[in-house]
Amino acid sequence: MPVWSDEGMWLLNQPPKEQLKAKYGFTLTDGWLDRAMKANVRFNSGGSGGFVSATGLIVTNHHIAADALQKLSKPGLDLYHDGFFAKEKAQELKCPDLELNVLQGIEDVTVRVNAAVKPAMKPAEAFAARRAVTGEIEKDSLAKTGLRSDVVMLYQGGAYHLYRYKKYTDVRLVFAPEFNIAGFGGDVDNFEYPRHGLDVAFFRAYENDQPVRPPHFFKWSEVGPAESDLVFVTGHPGTTNRLETLAKLKHRRDETLPYTLYRLRTLEAALTQYSNNGPEESRQAATDLHRVANTRKASSGQLQGLLDPQILKQKDLQEADLQNHLAVPVKPITPDPVRHWQAIAAAEKQYATFEKEHALLETGHAFFSELFTIARHAVRMGDELPKASADRLREYRDSNLESLRFQLLSPAPLYPALERAKLQTSLTFLAEVLGGDHPLVVLTLAGKNPAARAEELITGTKLFDVGERKKLLDGGSAAVAASSDPLIQLAKSLDEAARKLRTRYETEVEEPERQAYAEIAKIRFAAFGNSVAPDATFTLRLAFGTVKGYEVDGEKLPFHTTFGSAFARAKLMQNREPFDLPKRWRDGKAKLELTTPFNFVSTADTIGGNSGSPVLNRAGELVGINFDRNRHGLVRNFVYTEVQARHVAVHSRAVLEALRKLYDAESLAGELVGAK
Amino acid sequence: MPVWSDEGMWLLNQPPKEQLKAKYGFTLTDGWLDRAMKANVRFNSGGSGGFVSATGLIVTNHHIAADALQKLSKPGLDLYHDGFFAKEKAQELKCPDLELNVLQGIEDVTVRVNAAVKPAMKPAEAFAARRAVTGEIEKDSLAKTGLRSDVVMLYQGGAYHLYRYKKYTDVRLVFAPEFNIAGFGGDVDNFEYPRHGLDVAFFRAYENDQPVRPPHFFKWSEVGPAESDLVFVTGHPGTTNRLETLAKLKHRRDETLPYTLYRLRTLEAALTQYSNNGPEESRQAATDLHRVANTRKASSGQLQGLLDPQILKQKDLQEADLQNHLAVPVKPITPDPVRHWQAIAAAEKQYATFEKEHALLETGHAFFSELFTIARHAVRMGDELPKASADRLREYRDSNLESLRFQLLSPAPLYPALERAKLQTSLTFLAEVLGGDHPLVVLTLAGKNPAARAEELITGTKLFDVGERKKLLDGGSAAVAASSDPLIQLAKSLDEAARKLRTRYETEVEEPERQAYAEIAKIRFAAFGNSVAPDATFTLRLAFGTVKGYEVDGEKLPFHTTFGSAFARAKLMQNREPFDLPKRWRDGKAKLELTTPFNFVSTADTIGGNSGSPVLNRAGELVGINFDRNRHGLVRNFVYTEVQARHVAVHSRAVLEALRKLYDAESLAGELVGAK
Repeated sequence: MPVWSDEGMWLLNQPPKEQLKAKYGFTLTDGWLDRAMKANVRFNSGGSGGFVSATGLIVTNHHIAADALQKLSKPGLDLYHDGFFAKEKAQELKCPDLELNVLQGIEDVTVRVNAAVKPAMKPAEAFAARRAVTGEIEKDSLAKTGLRSDVVMLYQGGAYHLYRYKKYTDVRLVFAPEFNIAGFGGDVDNFEYPRHGLDVAFFRAYENDQPVRPPHFFKWSEVGPAESDLVFVTGHPGTTNRLETLAKLKHRRDETLPYTLYRLRTLEAALTQYSNNGPEESRQAATDLHRVANTRKASSGQLQGLLDPQILKQKDLQEADLQNHLAVPVKPITPDPVRHWQAIAAAEKQYATFEKEHALLETGHAFFSELFTIARHAVRMGDELPKASADRLREYRDSNLESLRFQLLSPAPLYPALERAKLQTSLTFLAEVLGGDHPLVVLTLAGKNPAARAEELITGTKLFDVGERKKLLDGGSAAVAASSDPLIQLAKSLDEAARKLRTRYETEVEEPERQAYAEIAKIRFAAFGNSVAPDATFTLRLAFGTVKGYEVDGEKLPFHTTFGSAFARAKLMQNREPFDLPKRWRDGKAKLELTTPFNFVSTADTIGGNSGSPVLNRAGELVGINFDRNRHGLVRNFVYTEVQARHVAVHSRAVLEALRKLYDAESLAGELVGAK
Repeated sequence: MPVWSDEGMWLLNQPPKEQLKAKYGFTLTDGWLDRAMKANVRFNSGGSGGFVSATGLIVTNHHIAADALQKLSKPGLDLYHDGFFAKEKAQELKCPDLELNVLQGIEDVTVRVNAAVKPAMKPAEAFAARRAVTGEIEKDSLAKTGLRSDVVMLYQGGAYHLYRYKKYTDVRLVFAPEFNIAGFGGDVDNFEYPRHGLDVAFFRAYENDQPVRPPHFFKWSEVGPAESDLVFVTGHPGTTNRLETLAKLKHRRDETLPYTLYRLRTLEAALTQYSNNGPEESRQAATDLHRVANTRKASSGQLQGLLDPQILKQKDLQEADLQNHLAVPVKPITPDPVRHWQAIAAAEKQYATFEKEHALLETGHAFFSELFTIARHAVRMGDELPKASADRLREYRDSNLESLRFQLLSPAPLYPALERAKLQTSLTFLAEVLGGDHPLVVLTLAGKNPAARAEELITGTKLFDVGERKKLLDGGSAAVAASSDPLIQLAKSLDEAARKLRTRYETEVEEPERQAYAEIAKIRFAAFGNSVAPDATFTLRLAFGTVKGYEVDGEKLPFHTTFGSAFARAKLMQNREPFDLPKRWRDGKAKLELTTPFNFVSTADTIGGNSGSPVLNRAGELVGINFDRNRHGLVRNFVYTEVQARHVAVHSRAVLEALRKLYDAESLAGELVGAK
């Protein structure tokens, strides 16, 4: 294990103080950490951000704001593409369903969770016991603190920590640049470097119709990072798989990733085709399409990584190394330890027999439609809410209900033709994967082909109407039973089968693996202590690294790009889409200081979900906004490397320069730098 | 069986004289048929066309000319996109590897082929015996006539006919319009109607450096078709599956088509991404991308068709109907006849166990690279050519060698970066489908991931050089054995495994099915005589139908569009790609008679391969050039319908009007209408 590399997405309650002291001579204080925690913001739509002013201003990426920008747009008004700026607070636009979470504290509850699971329990009992105790912990915490409370599993089951969040649901859009500069270079430059993206957006959190005055915020650096600076990335990395066993990684390589790529390419092709029907269709599908294309490119990189024999060999050695540590000190902990690795291999083998059915029917890959998601939740809430919170499917626990209803009753626009195209595509995909005679395919298609079935469902449903949804949610199982809505009926007809698949996953895969990983984690703790950070879990982490360029094929790439090199790249690519700079930029070139640093890279350890993460200097000032990795960083799901792998961030100076010179946004720039 | 519909891609030696007489009062004469045969042209690159002047002028589709246009282009010269016109013969451009075939006659050799296969033979022996006798027949015919001679299997094995072709390999480009008018509407309007495509191109055949004077050609109609006219489509439909058993169709639905779509979407995504790297990359990949997108859209329509329970029910009823005919008249022919259907079902079940390996390794889906194809042929020719022609793999029979070498030694340009991207994509696809530990994947990737392996192979190969290829082909197995070319070595290392898969396919699937289908064909002949045409086989066929519009969702679509409606559609779509008309058309709009019919539809029975087919009137004059079906016609692989299904053709008047008014091509228009 490369302990003294810059590897690690560290827990804020187990911070890498020792490493920072030894490698960088930096003393990580509790005050520094407290601000890093409480000025940080999690976007429930899947990203990170941070408070950057005393009056609730929040920075994130344009591509994290995308969902909100799309939902605030409509035919003839395209904020996602054209950008937005509210010069005054009264012009700020309230997002229909954006929820932000700010972490307030972490508590280790491993002992209480594990105590609920008795050795004699069967997997189903163990799973239920764990779910129940988790629910109790969350409920107690919510009652005691009034804060959103989530028990988070770490080390694949090696530890459980309780996270408490303050929630904001009145979030308003302040500023977004045009898509063409935020996502300059599109899919071509995505996951590449040198890079030129103004991938930022600003929101403001409100409470009681007043801007929030957060107890902590990050001071915006007017200088930004210099070469070789130590920097920190604080945000919410989504998922890594570094502590997974070799058997699990091979399962990903041979089962999960090929299926995922098959699915993503199918969706991407369908969304592209829908977009080609005209400018309005293109507008409707834009954020879905960009999200899918981004995930497809990331997944492709992961697959290349797992198909690289060197990487698998490295995992194999790590595994052997860990098993060798068993010899003396750890032996008493776990007799016949290799059986834990074997248990995971067996669970994965079992998983392969129903993984696709589970993904299609229960995860919902067969139903690429917001409306179906709403229908399923309505059906299940009817069945689940009468139960005690601890006995419900986890997403319906009391502590999550408010957030869930906020999503389901969102007034954000949905487009019938797009919903139909997406549903047709995913229903076809269902039939492709399982075959036309599979009973669940026959049940789903109900005697029609996917095209006709999707048309029937979308034409017939009333769930576009928020009032109709509210009636169903409020009416519970009686309202659901009485509903003749075709999507409700479809969700009902599949529910027994889908739940059965979920139970199989929980008892045949999830619980056995959790128990085995818990044992492996004990071995790892005994061998290496806390020197290995847990895999990412979309919870707040701290990473650190050095600002520096790297070499590719003998060419030295600088640690930052500039506005000037952005214009040069646009010219080289003949200003063709996706290299066509917005008019504001073409017209305003002369106003800009072209040597302004635009994007920069560092070795800090990031992954998807870190998008929008504040990048901080030693003083805890914001020097950048993380938005991507380069392609060498795509294997970071499995292994950390810093030879060429880098995360990419927008430079804090670039934001100020663009706001002031191009966007006539001195008020916003002034708020960032604390001008009166 | 809907005998009196317009269904049928009829053999020219079993023409539908009776049907035409009864339904249309039309007497199909032998002279009419003789001209239809000998003025017709098959493009070996996958389409149809026809002689249209006394001096060897040939019309086809722009999208059939695409391969030649691409190969005549280079960086800075894009004939595919920009079009071409040779005002004088001296300017006509010789295509590097285009071979045209003109059918001279057909002979029924069923008895001789079947006589070679004895009842006691095992499948492998039967397969070899059939291959041997087929080879003999072809060799005898070549020796006797000097003509390219191909034995064609009809009715899935129910009959064998010998086709003799005159070959042309000096083919020169005369005219092609811009891609943006030939393929106006791109993927959006592909397989749709109303339609507006000038999807035509003209070539001229030469012999001894002189224009060919063909004995027959089609007179170009200056009038074109009127509503309700009887028209004929004469061309080379590629593949239909109408006489396949229900078990085979379900195999297509559940195995072959999902795999095909997975593959095509993977290639399409990769080609799109390559194209996005810049204008030159876009030019290099354009024809590959359009071909893949076209096949993807056609395959998607086929899958929707097979997922339509009504269509499968129709096939089920047809099958039952045929089996019921067994009761009295046919019983003596075949005892226990249902076993033939069962034999096919069993063969398909067996096929499913190795279909993907076969497709990847032997068909070559793992190697989407011209260069690998060349390498494999070089390796196999070294092994095969020393054998007697009848014992070789079929593609190396004497009667095919000249055509094959013509392809392999083509000087058409190949682009390293594109070859690398294509190979990386298909090697990754190989690993996705078979898994990273599959021995053939391990062998193929040779310790690298697909990206690194593709780079190593394409960087290391010398096969870009035609001289190098010639050396290998001429040097035979000794040259191959001595070669250190990495692609040659890869092809060698896989050859044993690939051949084994081929043998399995031949003996476990192809031969048993052929025998079973032959028995089913006997039953069908006994029950229905010649009233059912065989499935398409990329050989010359005659279809007929009525020029007429149709209704969709209550809207009546006219039987033809006009130049005026093309401009209207471009405007509606804001002239955005793929609706951006060429400058010549935008600037020249005022010169055009906007009421000129542009594209028209008829009920005649067509499928892919019919692209470029002459559409003829009763007098045998050319009134149109077929180029597509509408989406309702996409199920024609499996069932014929004429309720809404139509083929789409360019109107003969549209071509004359555009040539004269926009392309300054009076000389060409004059040649078409026979002006002196």
